Amino acid sequence: MLCKDIGCAVTRIKDLIRQTLWASGARGVVVGISGGIDSAVAAAVAVKALGADHVLGVHMPSSSSSPLDHADAEELCGTLGIELLTVPLDGVVAAAFAVPCLTDDPVLRGNYTARLRMATLYNIAAARHYLVCGTSNKTEYMIGYSTKWGDSAADIQPLLHLWKKDVYAVAEELGVPRSIIEKAPSAGFWEGQSDEEELGFSYQELDAALMSLEEHGFVPQNVLEEQVLVLVNKSSHKRISAVSLL
Amino acid sequence: MLCKDIGCAVTRIKDLIRQTLWASGARGVVVGISGGIDSAVAAAVAVKALGADHVLGVHMPSSSSSPLDHADAEELCGTLGIELLTVPLDGVVAAAFAVPCLTDDPVLRGNYTARLRMATLYNIAAARHYLVCGTSNKTEYMIGYSTKWGDSAADIQPLLHLWKKDVYAVAEELGVPRSIIEKAPSAGFWEGQSDEEELGFSYQELDAALMSLEEHGFVPQNVLEEQVLVLVNKSSHKRISAVSLL
Repeated sequence: MLCKDIGCAVTRIKDLIRQTLWASGARGVVVGISGGIDSAVAAAVAVKALGADHVLGVHMPSSSSSPLDHADAEELCGTLGIELLTVPLDGVVAAAFAVPCLTDDPVLRGNYTARLRMATLYNIAAARHYLVCGTSNKTEYMIGYSTKWGDSAADIQPLLHLWKKDVYAVAEELGVPRSIIEKAPSAGFWEGQSDEEELGFSYQELDAALMSLEEHGFVPQNVLEEQVLVLVNKSSHKRISAVSLL
Repeated sequence: MLCKDIGCAVTRIKDLIRQTLWASGARGVVVGISGGIDSAVAAAVAVKALGADHVLGVHMPSSSSSPLDHADAEELCGTLGIELLTVPLDGVVAAAFAVPCLTDDPVLRGNYTARLRMATLYNIAAARHYLVCGTSNKTEYMIGYSTKWGDSAADIQPLLHLWKKDVYAVAEELGVPRSIIEKAPSAGFWEGQSDEEELGFSYQELDAALMSLEEHGFVPQNVLEEQVLVLVNKSSHKRISAVSLL
């Protein structure tokens, strides 16, 4: 976060969203609302920037989604005063994996679903002349904990400069519901998935390691930082556009 | 094209593909084969770079696809000696547009289908430890004639520095089948779609206008260039990653 003061941090994000919308000529933003902390904060800052009438929430449950996430998405959008569409993707995912030649396992199904969510958000956004607002944070961006051209693909990424801990700080500042702030972070690829269990690191460890790596020119200072640097290097292809001669 | 000699141009593309593959640790590339010129040339250069055993073609017909395109895809892959999978996406597209809240019109359906194709290619690629090879050329890239996070989304874009005319030159050099070289370019969003009719410009006009714009610092020299510059400016968001404060 470039500002030490949370109010200033929120103002910079609001300005980014407003200026991007004005420059594009679009009328509002669509945010995919998972029921988790990142999308809740993205929707909350978008409402601060544009007003509730220009923000649309879209919850896209799949078979592995928890009903609690749906309840949290509804509570969030009720609190923010924004419209919420619920678009179930089970039928589309089932049709996709019935197609010959596709391989089905939990990770590949999760990545496919993330890309379907992106396609769904862009359809809904285009019909309303809205932009797609992403919900990625800097911690997951740096370690590549995202689906390439899936959840990472959006027109604007207002939280991309925020470490996970900063996302929580903004959530507190903007009054995101407690149930969302307190639940264990999950990409929702399968039932009971926990980001921290899957990654083998807590977000607190990741934030600390990444900040230290940045400070020391990506020279690791301990074993944890060495392990995190491996994730950073392996995911570099996700932080560039396609390799080309252009 | 940076090389004046076509052989040198092909060598540079081959080197790019080989080096990208080696650096990634992947075993080959998947190319979506539409039956058109761009994907034919992308597959042909990939075979030159990696050998036929490391290139997989995937034809993904939809309801608006022509059977001629399928025949051309088969002829191309037969000529190149590469495996071709045919993965029909009609069922998935139908399931998607049966979902509430999605808007169906020819352009939105085309964009949705382009994103589904990307998701399909990434699934097939991941299961084989392959990369996804894109087929975009510089002409369509500069005017934004592509689906954001759809056909433009890939791990490597070996033709991105080539004007459309250069793509034809490489096609001739590599012996792409005549029927593919001679057919009218089409994104295949609907039956009988022609790129040049939809755009209102021929590719010859677009190439000439874009080359002149580059040469003159994007100051248009005539009315055609003014019109093409509008397309370039309107599509700038497709040539950057999402707007953020990072």
